[in-house]
Amino acid sequence: MKKIINDPSQVVNDMLKGMSSAHPDLLERLPESNVIHRIAETPDKVGLVSGGGSGHEPSHAGFVGQGMLSAAVCGEVFTSPTPDQILTAIKASDNGQGVFLIIKNYTGDVMNFEMAQEFAEAEGIQTAAIVVDDDIAIEDSTFTAGKRGVAGTVLMHKIMGYYADQGKSLSELSEIAEQVNANLNTIGLALTAATVPEVGKPGFDIADDEFEFGIGIHGEPGYRREKIKSSHDMAAELVQQLKKTFDWQAGDEYAVLVNSMGGTPQMELYIFWNDVQALLAEDGLKIKWVKVDELMTSLEMQGASLTLLHLDHTDWLTALQAPVDVLAW
Amino acid sequence: MKKIINDPSQVVNDMLKGMSSAHPDLLERLPESNVIHRIAETPDKVGLVSGGGSGHEPSHAGFVGQGMLSAAVCGEVFTSPTPDQILTAIKASDNGQGVFLIIKNYTGDVMNFEMAQEFAEAEGIQTAAIVVDDDIAIEDSTFTAGKRGVAGTVLMHKIMGYYADQGKSLSELSEIAEQVNANLNTIGLALTAATVPEVGKPGFDIADDEFEFGIGIHGEPGYRREKIKSSHDMAAELVQQLKKTFDWQAGDEYAVLVNSMGGTPQMELYIFWNDVQALLAEDGLKIKWVKVDELMTSLEMQGASLTLLHLDHTDWLTALQAPVDVLAW
Repeated sequence: MKKIINDPSQVVNDMLKGMSSAHPDLLERLPESNVIHRIAETPDKVGLVSGGGSGHEPSHAGFVGQGMLSAAVCGEVFTSPTPDQILTAIKASDNGQGVFLIIKNYTGDVMNFEMAQEFAEAEGIQTAAIVVDDDIAIEDSTFTAGKRGVAGTVLMHKIMGYYADQGKSLSELSEIAEQVNANLNTIGLALTAATVPEVGKPGFDIADDEFEFGIGIHGEPGYRREKIKSSHDMAAELVQQLKKTFDWQAGDEYAVLVNSMGGTPQMELYIFWNDVQALLAEDGLKIKWVKVDELMTSLEMQGASLTLLHLDHTDWLTALQAPVDVLAW
Repeated sequence: MKKIINDPSQVVNDMLKGMSSAHPDLLERLPESNVIHRIAETPDKVGLVSGGGSGHEPSHAGFVGQGMLSAAVCGEVFTSPTPDQILTAIKASDNGQGVFLIIKNYTGDVMNFEMAQEFAEAEGIQTAAIVVDDDIAIEDSTFTAGKRGVAGTVLMHKIMGYYADQGKSLSELSEIAEQVNANLNTIGLALTAATVPEVGKPGFDIADDEFEFGIGIHGEPGYRREKIKSSHDMAAELVQQLKKTFDWQAGDEYAVLVNSMGGTPQMELYIFWNDVQALLAEDGLKIKWVKVDELMTSLEMQGASLTLLHLDHTDWLTALQAPVDVLAW
C-alpha cells in the first residue's frame, strides 16, 4: 500500500487536524469529535448537517461554510459516523429553527442519522431529513437497501444551502429536498479499486484491461464488467441508462455534474464531458449548468460518475449558481 | 493503459472542446488554436498569459478568468506549445498596455515563449516575462537548464493577476514577479508514474514499495529513491530542504501550498499538511495563508509537492487572498 499517511488507524483524525489547521477562518473541528463545523453561522436559520464515512473527500467537510453546510460528520473510512457524533453536529448547527439532515442512502448512515434525530428531538431540537438515493446503477447493493446515495448528494447540499440561507423552514426544506431527489440521478464507472488504509489492499480485483459500470463509492460491485473502451462508448452507456430513467424530451432543462472518483485526471473528465454533451445535444436537452470536478470520491479510485438534475423548478438553477464560501465548490 | 479517452493523439483537442463547452460564460477556445481565453477581459490593463504542456490540469486553463490569467496556451501532453500558439494568446490578451508572460522554467517553454515575444514585439505589442524556477529538488534536469518551474507558478499567477487588475504597468509587474520568484520554493515527491496517452506506458518504473523525492512534473528523475515511509518522515525531508534554501528565522511569515500530483486523494494531502504545519511551527514560522489542493499535476501521478512563499511584502498576502472568478482556484 502506497499512501502518504502515518498510522492507518489515525487517518481520519490526522486529516481533520490538517483540515481545521489549514482553514481556521472558515471551519473548526468541534472538541473531541470528528465534526467539522463552520465558523460563520447564519443566525435564525435552519442548520444543515451532512456526513458519512470518510474517504469521499471533499465530501462532506469541503462543503462546510456560507451557503452550503453548517457541519459535516466524518466517520472512519467508508464507515458510518456514530449517532453521538451526528448529535454533536446537530446541536452545534441548531439556531432555534431546527436542523435539516442530508443523508446518502447507505443503510448504516440512515440508521445512525435516524438515531441521532431521535436523540436531538429528545433534547428539544427539531429535525428533518432527506435520504438521497440518486445512484441508478444498482438496486439493493452490498451495504444498502434501495438505491445508493452518491455524487448527486453534493448538488443537494448546494440547493438546500441556498434555500436555508433564504430562510426556508424545516418543512419547506423537506418538501424541496424530496422534489430535488426525485429529479436527481447518477451513474458511474470505475477503472481501478481504492485501498482502505486499515485494510491495506484494494477493495476488489480488476484486470489491467477492464473497467466496470456501476461500482459504488465503497467499491460495491457494479452491474457489468467490460474490456476498456473509448470515452465515447462509456459515455453512451451512462447517458442511455439516464435517458431510460428520466424519460426525457427535447427541450428539457438539466444541470450536469461530471465527478471524478478520486484518481482520474481532470483531462479525462473534460474528455468524458465532451462526449456526454454531444450525446445530450443529440437528444435536444438544454444544459443550463455544468460542473466538472472531484466532489464525491472513493479515495484514489480511478473512474467517474455522471449526475443529471432535471431542472423541474427554475429557481434550482439560481440555487446552483449562488455564490458560496466553502473549500471545494 | 486505462484512461477515459478516445484517440490518444486527440486528448488535448478533446479536453479543450470539453472545457470550453462546459464553461461558456467564463472562457472560450480561440478559433483554430489550443488557447483558452477569458470572456471578460479587463480593458486598459496589462494582459497575463501562461501555458505549457498539457497534463498538468488545472494548470493553466483552470486559472483563466477575472483576477488571474487572460489566456492559457495548451501544448500537447508534456510538450511545449508552439510560438505561433503563444502569439495567438498574446494578441488576444493585449489591450494596448502590453502582455506579461508567466513561464515555467523548462527549456522548450522558455525558447518558444521567447520566440513568441519576438513575434509580438515585431507586431507592436509590448511584452515582458518571468521564468518561474521554484523547484529546489534538482538543478539542470532532463529537459531544463537550471531549476524547473513547478507548482509555485500557480501562486505567481495569483499574485500577478492581482497586480495586473490593480493597473500595474508591464515594468512594475516584471519587478514584482522577480521579487516573488526569489522568495518562492517548491519540492515534491512521487509514489507512482504517470502515463502519457500517446506513449501508453508509465514514464518510469517504480516498485510497489518505493517512492522518490524530487521527481519532476514530466516524470524527470528526482534525487533519491527510498522505501515508502510515513507522511511525517516525508514531510520532514521536504521541510528540511526548504529550510536550507530559505534559511528562515522564527517569526518569518510564509504562505504554503500543498499540491497533489494528480492521483493523490485529498485525505492524504491534509494528513501531509498536518505533518508539515507541525514542523513549521517548531521553527516558529508564521503561516499566514494555506492552500491544500490539486493545482499543478502530472496526469494521474500519485505524490505531492510543498511550496513555500516567504511573504517578504505584506501586500502579497492581500494578493493571494483577493477573490477571483476562475475554475480551479
